Order: sequence, then structure tokens, then C-alpha cells
Amino acid sequence: MNILIAPNALKNALNAQEVGKAIALGFNESKYKGEVFVLPIADGGDGSLDILAYYHKAEIREVEVSDPLGRNVKARYAINPRERLGIVELAEASGIRWLVEDELNPWIANTRGTGMVIKELLQEGCNHIILSVGGSASLDGGLGILEALGVKFIADNEPFLPTGPCDFFKISSIDSKAAKAKYGHVKFSVLCDVENELLGEFGAVRVFGPQKGVQLDEIEDLEESMEHWVSLLEQQTDQRIKYMKSGGASGGVPAGLASVFKVEIMQGANEILRMANFTEFLAKSDLVITTEGQIDMQTGFGKGPGLVAKYAKDQGKKVIGLCGQVSDDYDPQKSHFDAVFSINSKLYPLNVAISRSRSNLRFMGLQIGNLFAE
Amino acid sequence: MNILIAPNALKNALNAQEVGKAIALGFNESKYKGEVFVLPIADGGDGSLDILAYYHKAEIREVEVSDPLGRNVKARYAINPRERLGIVELAEASGIRWLVEDELNPWIANTRGTGMVIKELLQEGCNHIILSVGGSASLDGGLGILEALGVKFIADNEPFLPTGPCDFFKISSIDSKAAKAKYGHVKFSVLCDVENELLGEFGAVRVFGPQKGVQLDEIEDLEESMEHWVSLLEQQTDQRIKYMKSGGASGGVPAGLASVFKVEIMQGANEILRMANFTEFLAKSDLVITTEGQIDMQTGFGKGPGLVAKYAKDQGKKVIGLCGQVSDDYDPQKSHFDAVFSINSKLYPLNVAISRSRSNLRFMGLQIGNLFAE
Repeated sequence: MNILIAPNALKNALNAQEVGKAIALGFNESKYKGEVFVLPIADGGDGSLDILAYYHKAEIREVEVSDPLGRNVKARYAINPRERLGIVELAEASGIRWLVEDELNPWIANTRGTGMVIKELLQEGCNHIILSVGGSASLDGGLGILEALGVKFIADNEPFLPTGPCDFFKISSIDSKAAKAKYGHVKFSVLCDVENELLGEFGAVRVFGPQKGVQLDEIEDLEESMEHWVSLLEQQTDQRIKYMKSGGASGGVPAGLASVFKVEIMQGANEILRMANFTEFLAKSDLVITTEGQIDMQTGFGKGPGLVAKYAKDQGKKVIGLCGQVSDDYDPQKSHFDAVFSINSKLYPLNVAISRSRSNLRFMGLQIGNLFAE
Repeated sequence: MNILIAPNALKNALNAQEVGKAIALGFNESKYKGEVFVLPIADGGDGSLDILAYYHKAEIREVEVSDPLGRNVKARYAINPRERLGIVELAEASGIRWLVEDELNPWIANTRGTGMVIKELLQEGCNHIILSVGGSASLDGGLGILEALGVKFIADNEPFLPTGPCDFFKISSIDSKAAKAKYGHVKFSVLCDVENELLGEFGAVRVFGPQKGVQLDEIEDLEESMEHWVSLLEQQTDQRIKYMKSGGASGGVPAGLASVFKVEIMQGANEILRMANFTEFLAKSDLVITTEGQIDMQTGFGKGPGLVAKYAKDQGKKVIGLCGQVSDDYDPQKSHFDAVFSINSKLYPLNVAISRSRSNLRFMGLQIGNLFAE
């Protein structure tokens, strides 16, 4: 009997590697004597940098760039120079996490900081960029990244530096020749956690606008600005980005990027499982353990842990989900999990629970190990 | 594969039968298709009445008697008239639960109420009394029970009605002839949860006195009073009750009772497992689940759930403990349990956790059922 631990990070507590280590330590202390495989995972969005760097043996570095509102922040990224591979997580520079609530404003927020990180990697000689999106503050259709990579904008026959959607109608044309000449050879693998298109009923503005601070009465104006932006982009590309699947992720970054550069869209959680050789380890295992901060109705269908549970169940394996708490809407009868357990063995205050995550995970590992020892 | 559920009550939440039903319901909703045996248990002390009545098919009734300080209270007891069997739990009438903290006073507290319950059963024709002790407020050496059953006390050559240890030195002799003549045929099976003797270093006064309200500077006086009481009792019996094992349980009730009546002392938790045919069901089962409000270091060695875990482990079965919370002093490496899980899947406030015990137990049953389904 073998055990596969495929942990997701516990938000605000431990990253996925730390979670995996703690559970594995518990198994080592238990009566269980079989193999324990640990494959840290991520849901492909916000928080994937460490996992991507782990599987690509890339080194984590840091650079000072712009946040969504143009202030200086430090953003982490990863590089594997031998493979000329750069790994960028959009939320590092351009995440909504940099803004307090009354700063939310997608009319002016942009992804220039992420473009600066990418440029840093391209200057280091990378010809392949893995970009994980999710958790963005902006709806800039990729404007900020394109700008940082040398795409030029014209307004009133003059060069113009647009800030965000507030400036889209001022732009009369886009010139990406120089940027294409310089970086046209670079491949962008964009890991997305949603499939929404950029425009329309299920587009970026209508679906994600409100959570980024768009008021309901601004939705139509912003959608029109975005339509103008898309038509500008489509004038200088043979890509039909308007209806591109996942084009509306992170406020339109995949669509914008694809209008100028070589882009492949990937479903993030799936791609991370592929990198981890998950299928191969799953075949060798009898029990799968995954983790998530909160396990709720969404987890069963969703990214990361939900996908692990689904694949495990499809192969007839037992699956346990460990979490900080199980939401009231979780329905065991509609889940791929055989069991989900809170790792909290007492009714701690939340901050105490978080501080004890590591020892609680270890304790659970020990106990599950004992239960499944032969 | 068969499952044996041997639940203890969750104090302040559910009795053992309710706990067992909730877990079994969860198993029925799971993918598990084997047999589920439910044997409610108790630790043999405080709280055993319902379990004893359950296994002896006895009917629960109620009678108004005296509490430890002589006030009227309603006490439950059980009777199986066909078997002439009465079941009495000492804490029902004589429990410390009837007193608020500043009423604690073992000099005057007594077990007369329990004697009244027993007398009720004897008048109904019972010739066998099962008496579970534990949780008492008194250190009366069985005085109250003996009085209620017709034992006479003499002081200054006059009949005398002593209240408690405060009166022990006033007693010059004890006359139990009438009581013996009337109830000498009755067998008392006393279920004890401790093995302490009545007197001495590990005796009732020194070990249990403080928790019953004896001040440290009163210990010696009370011990001397108890010595006098014992010598009075021994003058009219051939039993050497002074060093009787478990004689000091519930403030000396087993010792006092044994000086006049036919008494067999039983280890309560063990005796309840015997009644439940635990060993037979254990042999047929692969996994054992037991419960306790809090699982701590004591549980591993102790009564009820701890004993279930020990016996299960001795037979090489897997054992899971479910509880409200796992104490910080619980050490999985020194426990018979393979795993202990809190049933709380969220960090509820305590009162919410208690109110959700039933659904949380059911959820755990479902999950463990899924995990062990073939």
C-alpha cells in the first residue's frame, strides 16, 4: 500500500511544500510502513509561483516593480537559466492584495508591474515564460504588460501612455512591430484558473468587475471601453481574441498578450498536476490525501484539491481532504472525497489554529498512517 | 469487514445510546456495506444508569428522596421486576452535582437518598441491586444507606440518628440485626470506578476529600472520625472492611455496605463491557469506534473508552476515538487508539459545537464508513 500526499497551500498558514512535509513527517512516526509520495500542488492561480518553481527547479528572485496603481512593490519571480525559462505569477506585482478596499479602481489599475517582471526575465535571456494569472486588481486587457514589453500607443497622432480602461477611447492605434521584432520568439504559457472570455455576458468585466471594485452603473461603460480596446488589438493581429477561451482571465491579460505574442493557454491546476507527474504516482498509490484551507461545495468541483479528488476517485482510490474547516455547504454525497477532516483537534481561536497548523497536520498524518498501516 | 461502535456518553451533549445511533446513521449513509454493531458503554461510575438499564432491559423510574444535605430531589433508578433486579446510580440522589460550591461539606453530607432509592426497590421485591457509585458528595462511609435500610445507631445508650462524619465519635455501637434479618438475602453488586481503600494514604478521605470540600487542615480529624466509624462497623461483622479494595469508592459506601450486607465489588467499566458481550462482538469486528467528550492522556489508560481501545488493540483491531476535543496532553505514541478525531469540522463556539454533536457524529460516521468501505 502506498500513499500519495498532494497538498495545496493552507492560505495564511503554510505553503504547499510545508503542508506536505508536515503530513509526511506524521506518516513517518506512524505504524505505516509503505511508500509516501509528496507532490505539492496549486490551483493554477494566485499562489502558484512556489509550486511552479519547485517542479521546474527554478530559483526564486525578487525585483522592484509597480503595483496596480503604480507604487513601488517587491515582486517575486523564478528563473531556470539553463532552460531559459522564467516563471511569473501575476498577483506578485499586480495582485488585488496590494490594494485596500477604497483603492479598488479598475479604470486605472493595470498590469504594468507584471510586464516589468517579464521584461526582467526576457533581458536575462529567457525564451519561455510561464505566467500564472489570478487574483488581479485590474481589467486592463493586458495593456500594462504590452506597454512594458515595448508596444506603442498612438493618440491624436502622438505617442501616448495609457493608464488603464479610462484611456482606451483615447487610443487611435497600436504599434507592436518593435515589440514583436524583439520578443516574437518568446513563448508564453499562460496558466489560467477560469475559462471566461474577455467580452460579453460571461466576460471579464461583467463577471469579475464587481469584485474588483466596478460599480454596477459603470459596467456598461467599462464593457464598451473594453470592446474598443479589443477592436484596436484585433486590427494588428490575425488572432480573434474577442472570443478566446480564458481570454478574460485576470482582466484580459491572456487576450491582450495573445494579440501580439505567441501564447498557449493552459488550465492551471491540470498543468501543475501534469508537471508533478501526478497520474504516474496516482497509479502507484492506494490512498490520496490533499489539503485546502477551507473545504466547501466549490472544492468538490473546483481546481487543485478538487481535481486531485476527482482523478483519484476516477481511478478507484480512497481520497481524504484535510482542511482548517469544512464549510456548512459541503455535501459529502456530492463530493469526490471519501472523507474530509478538520485538522483542528480543539476549538481553538482562529489565530491559534493557524499557528498550530504544522503540528496539527503532523498529528493527522500520524493518525491516518496508523489507520492505514497493514 | 464489520464495525463495532462502542460509544460513551458525550457529557452535556448526548447519552451513549444517542451517540451510537448518530454514528450508525452516518455509516448507513456511507458506501460501507458491512455489519455495524452498536454497544453503548459507560465508565462504570457517574452516568451508568442508562447503560445498565439498557443491557438489563430494566425500566427507568423516578422517586423523590433526599439529596446529600437532606433536601428533596427526584432520583432516577431502574427495575426489571421479572428478574427482581434493581439498578441504582448513587449520583442520582447523592451526587455532588446537587450542591453548589459553598455547600460542599462532607462532615454533614450523606448517602441517605441513595438508601431510600434502594429501599424502594427492596420493597418492590428486588433481591439483587446493582449500585454504580462515583460522583458522590459525601464521605459518610455508607452511613446514610445503612440508616435507610434499618441499621440502628446507639449514643449514650439511646437510639441516635447520625448525620455524617460529624457524628461518628458520638456513636457507641451499631445494631444491624433487624436490617440483616430483613435484607440479608439481597445481593449488592457494587460497580466501582476506583480501587481506593477507605482509610490511609490512598484512602477516601485523603484522596477524594479535597474535591468534596474538605479543607487541608480538616483531613486528619476526618480520617480519625472515619477510623472510629470503621472500628464500629468491624465490631459487628466478620468482614475486614478497613483494607477492602474499592472500599473507599464514593466516600466509603462499598465498605459500609459490606459490613452488613452481601456485597460483590466489580470494576464498573469492565462489568459493563461484560454485560454488553463486548468480547464476542469485538472478535467479529475489524474496526472499533468509541467516543468521549474529551480524549486526553487519562483516556488511554482509563475506564470506558480507554478500556475499549485497549481490548481492541490487544486483539489487533483498528481503533478510532471520536471526541469533542483532543487534550494537549494526549500522546498518540502512548495510546491504544490508532486515531482520535474531533467531531468538530469548524471552529465553532463551544455551545454551538455541543448543539451540533448529533449531526457532527453522523458526518463522521459517514466519512469513516466511506474510508473503510471495500
